[in-house]
Amino acid sequence: MSVRMAAMVTTSLSTRDKLLRAREASSRLSRLSTTEKNGILLLMADSIEANAGSILEANRADLSASQLVGAMRDRLLLDAGRVRLMAEGVRDVAKLPDPTFETLSEWIRPNGLRIRKVRVPLGVVGIIYESRPNVTVDTVALTFKTGNAVVLRGGKEAAHSNQRLVEILTQVAGVPEGAIELLESSSRDSVGELIQARGLVDVVIPRGGPELISYVTQNASVPVIETGAGNCHIFVDESADFDMADRIVINAKTQRPSVCNAAEKLLVHERIAAKYIPQIVKKLIGCGVEVRGDETTLQLADGMIVVPAKASDWGEEYLRLCIAIRVVSGVDEAIAHIERYSTKHSEAIITQDEEHARRFLRQVDSAAVYWNASTRFSDGGEFGFGAEMGVSTQKLHCRGPFALAELTSTKYEVIGDGQVRQ
Amino acid sequence: MSVRMAAMVTTSLSTRDKLLRAREASSRLSRLSTTEKNGILLLMADSIEANAGSILEANRADLSASQLVGAMRDRLLLDAGRVRLMAEGVRDVAKLPDPTFETLSEWIRPNGLRIRKVRVPLGVVGIIYESRPNVTVDTVALTFKTGNAVVLRGGKEAAHSNQRLVEILTQVAGVPEGAIELLESSSRDSVGELIQARGLVDVVIPRGGPELISYVTQNASVPVIETGAGNCHIFVDESADFDMADRIVINAKTQRPSVCNAAEKLLVHERIAAKYIPQIVKKLIGCGVEVRGDETTLQLADGMIVVPAKASDWGEEYLRLCIAIRVVSGVDEAIAHIERYSTKHSEAIITQDEEHARRFLRQVDSAAVYWNASTRFSDGGEFGFGAEMGVSTQKLHCRGPFALAELTSTKYEVIGDGQVRQ
Repeated sequence: MSVRMAAMVTTSLSTRDKLLRAREASSRLSRLSTTEKNGILLLMADSIEANAGSILEANRADLSASQLVGAMRDRLLLDAGRVRLMAEGVRDVAKLPDPTFETLSEWIRPNGLRIRKVRVPLGVVGIIYESRPNVTVDTVALTFKTGNAVVLRGGKEAAHSNQRLVEILTQVAGVPEGAIELLESSSRDSVGELIQARGLVDVVIPRGGPELISYVTQNASVPVIETGAGNCHIFVDESADFDMADRIVINAKTQRPSVCNAAEKLLVHERIAAKYIPQIVKKLIGCGVEVRGDETTLQLADGMIVVPAKASDWGEEYLRLCIAIRVVSGVDEAIAHIERYSTKHSEAIITQDEEHARRFLRQVDSAAVYWNASTRFSDGGEFGFGAEMGVSTQKLHCRGPFALAELTSTKYEVIGDGQVRQ
Repeated sequence: MSVRMAAMVTTSLSTRDKLLRAREASSRLSRLSTTEKNGILLLMADSIEANAGSILEANRADLSASQLVGAMRDRLLLDAGRVRLMAEGVRDVAKLPDPTFETLSEWIRPNGLRIRKVRVPLGVVGIIYESRPNVTVDTVALTFKTGNAVVLRGGKEAAHSNQRLVEILTQVAGVPEGAIELLESSSRDSVGELIQARGLVDVVIPRGGPELISYVTQNASVPVIETGAGNCHIFVDESADFDMADRIVINAKTQRPSVCNAAEKLLVHERIAAKYIPQIVKKLIGCGVEVRGDETTLQLADGMIVVPAKASDWGEEYLRLCIAIRVVSGVDEAIAHIERYSTKHSEAIITQDEEHARRFLRQVDSAAVYWNASTRFSDGGEFGFGAEMGVSTQKLHCRGPFALAELTSTKYEVIGDGQVRQ
């Protein structure tokens, strides 16, 4: 079947039909054993490798239809190595422990009722994402492993690649019909239907830029896990080891500036500012970073090119080689600054003072708070989860990097011998 | 200060000002120790008792302004005994363990990073509720205990009572300004602002009827914990002990028919239907229950008054002395019926067959699933939580009865010695 034909067949189902199929599939999926699920995941990985040719063909159709250039084009591009990596990723998920049907707690009430809290699949998980086709495969692996049906709404630039990948995955023996549904990406209508499908969809996870996330949180009536923005801060305290501070600041800012856990702001204790600011500004500029600063920073970095920071800088997520520096009177002012401007993703303190570190760790209200380490560790893989669905910046359900366990809900199983309520 | 004066003073702040004050208060609240919080809770309880006279005076103003009669008026009514019970409820919450800053897990990564997952307050919790003034006090106690600021939006029938209670609670020594904010209840505007206050409010919990809950879930951009509707089922299996089944069905239907964990539907195995249906229909009618039924039930209950069930009956939550009965071919059809019609709140199987019970417990996708016990146990107090904020019928964050632990989020505290990401 040609790519074009397959696309026509699948998209003849309406979004609502696909959501209904996913809902029905979810109960069949929840009944699969861990062994069955892992076996199917391995078949999925094999099938991706066996069908590498047609995946690359579909990807070429996307590339030739798109206007993307540079890094954006690279995000869309697949090659033989990337296809192998996608398959390997699925095999890795097969090896991870299955969190579903784990007993989280169990107790007996005075009336003899035995109450057991168990993890269960969420049901139907909707994912809205942008151009990278590997997200399609990652997401299917994680949701399938946790017994969920998944409804995918990828970017239109990757429509052919996603279509081909979903065909391959759904055709694997043992995958229930409706377990993996791909929505039409040519208009926003399917997003609107997905995020309003109360009763059919249990959660929607937007993975993408601020505009997408804002659209979804504003318009969804289905519960959302918000992933996203990271205006991350590093505070270099009076007692900081300057070499360590340099390593961490340079790593957090430059190792991968386009991601949400990269540092965007540097706060420096006023007592060390005169010594530390010239040193770090020089190194940052040497790494190609555009440096912005408050008035004190501008004075202290005299002779180096530092842009005066505007009020809007403090709340901005640059996502590129740019950082703004501000001098603060100490740990409390650093915490207050972070409280005011942070997106509550990841923040770090560099200090040798344990009391300051404890106060910072406890009082900074962010998903991940670091003492003497780079903010770049806010990642499911780096946390040891073996995978990642995203980094939650909301407080409900899960917060920070999340993976398999967070793709589950719970239920209470209650066993009695005829108890009634008084 | 008279009730009227106080109301004027407080309501001169806009909803947005109140939300900003609550946001600011939330960080101060998160720093209170368990001992400080418990001490303040006991002072709140004392102050409620000491001010019983003015609470009852405010309540009389509500009662004389309202058109409510019967049960609705009773929900609004306070008397000396009810005021004492409110105070006792606060003392009970003071005695419960404080879940905040509990370490949920801790591990060390191969690179030496120590990662600790700790419970933290949610921040600012919005509660939208209807006429019962005791919800005001309950909610303040639970949110204060967990270090959260609370924004209350009660029903307009209870405006004077709520205003007086909030004055008393906020004036207790040690309560930070903004910790307890009461919104204007004369129009829906304050609800709209509250549920759209992203960045200021971390979660909104609607406690009320289906119309309120639907309005909030449809219009909120702030995360919501949906509480609510219970179209609860009891399935009497072939091997059920009939006496036990009778006790449970009668209890679940009649002990308090107006609440969400009351049974609304009875499914009966076809092999026992001829014997069991006449017996239970007679008892239900004897308890004043209106019985509806499918065709088989109508035939089997010959001579008794059974209303033919319409298609719409199966999805309806009666919340009164009414039940609909359907005969099914066995546990699988019971599960399929529940999957189709249930609101996923609470369901029960009555059986002596352990395999059937296990299948029902595992496969029924509801917040609480019972084997040989009444659905009426779906309640925070009955589960042993010592309190209850509501019963969540969504799958995100918490599911089923929830109380203190579910009023918290988590964060990661990560301790290193200079680690940077490779």
